[in-house]
Amino acid sequence: MPDLTPFTLLIQHAAQVLTLAGGPTTRPLAGADLGGWRIIENGYVACVAGTIAAVGPMSELDADRITAETQLLDATGRVLMPGLVECHTHLVFGGNRAHEFERKLRGESYLDILASGGGILSTVRATRAASEDELLENALHHLDGFRRYGVTTVEAKSGYGLDRDTELRLVRVARQAGRQQPVRVVPTFLGAHVVPPEFKPAGPQAYVDFILREVLSELKGEAAFVDIFCEEGAFPLDVSRYYLEQAHKMGFGLKIHAEQLHDLGGCEMAAALGATSVDHCDYLTPEAAARIAQQTQGQTVAVLLPLVPLFLRQAKYAPGRAFIDNGLPVAVSTDFNPGSCPSKNLWLALSVACLNMGLTPKEAVAAATLNAAWAIGLAADCGSLEPGKRADVLVLDLASVAEIPYWLGENPVRAVVIGGAVQ
Amino acid sequence: MPDLTPFTLLIQHAAQVLTLAGGPTTRPLAGADLGGWRIIENGYVACVAGTIAAVGPMSELDADRITAETQLLDATGRVLMPGLVECHTHLVFGGNRAHEFERKLRGESYLDILASGGGILSTVRATRAASEDELLENALHHLDGFRRYGVTTVEAKSGYGLDRDTELRLVRVARQAGRQQPVRVVPTFLGAHVVPPEFKPAGPQAYVDFILREVLSELKGEAAFVDIFCEEGAFPLDVSRYYLEQAHKMGFGLKIHAEQLHDLGGCEMAAALGATSVDHCDYLTPEAAARIAQQTQGQTVAVLLPLVPLFLRQAKYAPGRAFIDNGLPVAVSTDFNPGSCPSKNLWLALSVACLNMGLTPKEAVAAATLNAAWAIGLAADCGSLEPGKRADVLVLDLASVAEIPYWLGENPVRAVVIGGAVQ
Ligand SMILES: [Zn+2]
Ligand SMILES: [Zn+2]
Repeated sequence: MPDLTPFTLLIQHAAQVLTLAGGPTTRPLAGADLGGWRIIENGYVACVAGTIAAVGPMSELDADRITAETQLLDATGRVLMPGLVECHTHLVFGGNRAHEFERKLRGESYLDILASGGGILSTVRATRAASEDELLENALHHLDGFRRYGVTTVEAKSGYGLDRDTELRLVRVARQAGRQQPVRVVPTFLGAHVVPPEFKPAGPQAYVDFILREVLSELKGEAAFVDIFCEEGAFPLDVSRYYLEQAHKMGFGLKIHAEQLHDLGGCEMAAALGATSVDHCDYLTPEAAARIAQQTQGQTVAVLLPLVPLFLRQAKYAPGRAFIDNGLPVAVSTDFNPGSCPSKNLWLALSVACLNMGLTPKEAVAAATLNAAWAIGLAADCGSLEPGKRADVLVLDLASVAEIPYWLGENPVRAVVIGGAVQ
Repeated sequence: MPDLTPFTLLIQHAAQVLTLAGGPTTRPLAGADLGGWRIIENGYVACVAGTIAAVGPMSELDADRITAETQLLDATGRVLMPGLVECHTHLVFGGNRAHEFERKLRGESYLDILASGGGILSTVRATRAASEDELLENALHHLDGFRRYGVTTVEAKSGYGLDRDTELRLVRVARQAGRQQPVRVVPTFLGAHVVPPEFKPAGPQAYVDFILREVLSELKGEAAFVDIFCEEGAFPLDVSRYYLEQAHKMGFGLKIHAEQLHDLGGCEMAAALGATSVDHCDYLTPEAAARIAQQTQGQTVAVLLPLVPLFLRQAKYAPGRAFIDNGLPVAVSTDFNPGSCPSKNLWLALSVACLNMGLTPKEAVAAATLNAAWAIGLAADCGSLEPGKRADVLVLDLASVAEIPYWLGENPVRAVVIGGAVQ
């Protein structure tokens, strides 16, 4: 029996509806599936309350479900697509590092800046010093920015507190920010971002023991994921493995920052533990990518962060094309943070992913929608335009998917719908 | 006797007013002057009708000139700066090249694409086929985009017609677009963009002879500048020199696209003829830059276009830092065009100029305001916040000039004032 519930919102006459549908539904898109999803020409998206009710070509629109109460949006000549999913950010922090950036431009070295109290620890100081209200206000400001780019779900990592109270505060602020505006926020606990000054003498193992004992136990149900920065100068491979194993036992989903600057084997280690995502991957080899894809049966997503090498002036970008060809699912994100990527412009990240990592336009779109949703465990709920999913829909001021990465650095968003409500 | 005319608009309490004032007024900013201009902390900008009337610290604000008619804008915690000047765009064209971009991403070579009718000539076909109304509508769309980035003056080159009627139409459309919305448009004639198919057998010299004879004579008073693309595959050095010499005799200001892909000596040649600007300069050597600075007494501006190598995936960026240190004035622009830079995001260009060309934040700001105004002959009229200049003012959602290039790819504009009117 057909559903006759009236549509509350109908977006119609779109030049293209980028459904992101048509691929496998039990795992992230990989290989040919990443760019193989369905585009509907001259199509519509219809919602009932907060949920997508129907998607199809205009010729199949069920006119009986349009009533006087149905809100109509015309998308003639435009593209419809799912809301962007931003699966890797450091949303909550105090201060910014603009002056440090200026010093870098003037030629000061990373070590000079670090020696004078700069770098990540300057953000830690500013974050510890900020009140919960200030942190919340900053987070809301940045979420507003994300929303204007059409980002409807944002993952938000802690990691600039590095002590018990501040880390818990950062997770609390992320959750609170998610409640105070329409963009959904998914908190991740990154207490193991770097070893804080207080633990320098005791070392990384002592610090993760402290986190496991004193902090993680407070976060059951508050943060879905636990993340660690596995890198020289941060956490070595063996400590990272131990930490993720323990976090896994406590019921958390796993993520890792790995192979950003060196190939330490962090991605393969975390994937073997069932990590939902492995992030950065600039130094992950295509061979290791193939092994991860096989070992995890394509369940672990490699999150590519192309704006980070751009901002850090590094020549090496993750070989995204080879990852895809070797069967590893990829997502693309900004890595928004005050040190290595002060950008919320996920569209720019998609362009740079195409230019410097070899993605095609359709692959880039999938990487910032459905696969990004997989990377934060929400693929059943968002990331594609399919009946039953949350009604997060963008109207773009573009006529085709090929234009998305083409208009470099521009924001193509004309309208944002979150949970069925036009913003 | 003090001026007592009431202010029509007062923007006050700004954290920083980036005046761009304090340097030499008879030539573009160069060397230490480029970053040496004055910032006023806790300042205001006041306008009378379309003109800036006063700029200073709040402590010196003449309260007697504030009346019930004065429109007040609060800029507490924010930066005020002159409207951006975009001194190098190809604003008017038909179609776009998104599908060609996609083919490039899939690995097709430039020559494959050219052989199948792609490249610049595909835009020439689309432009010739477009009606004047369509071209105008596209131009207005892009000007609206520029305005939202805080660009208040746009140079617009012809060059996708390459026949008499279409080239004249492109200049006409640019002028018409300038009249129909608030952003000022400055047309440049780039009929010598490439040799059109019709002139392939006869060659570059025959084509520029045709332009000089049949087209330029129609453009007196319609286009202030004449430009040519001096490059392998476009116009050789000797033809470029001949053409610019003739255009100069006809009274046009001179510009050149040169040293984009090879060092042919086009910049030095054009500068010796008194060119207002030399554009691209990726292959211009620091030594040649020093010679140009000396020969022209610092009057010729090098227009840097950092988004072009980014979009074309070229490793070579103009050595902007060396140009500045060698006394050559620089401006920064997008080069907005459908082939090598489909971006109107001049803020992104400033960030990339800092990252990959070595500019500091203050230098980058000068390069997109006062020096860009010099590059199109409008420095007496705009590009700085000084009494008597056109009241083109931006309110930025930032607290200091250092943040401008820092927030990578973001649009910091909160309010745009053009000719004293809040947009
Ligand atoms: Zn990160
Ligand atoms: Zn150009």
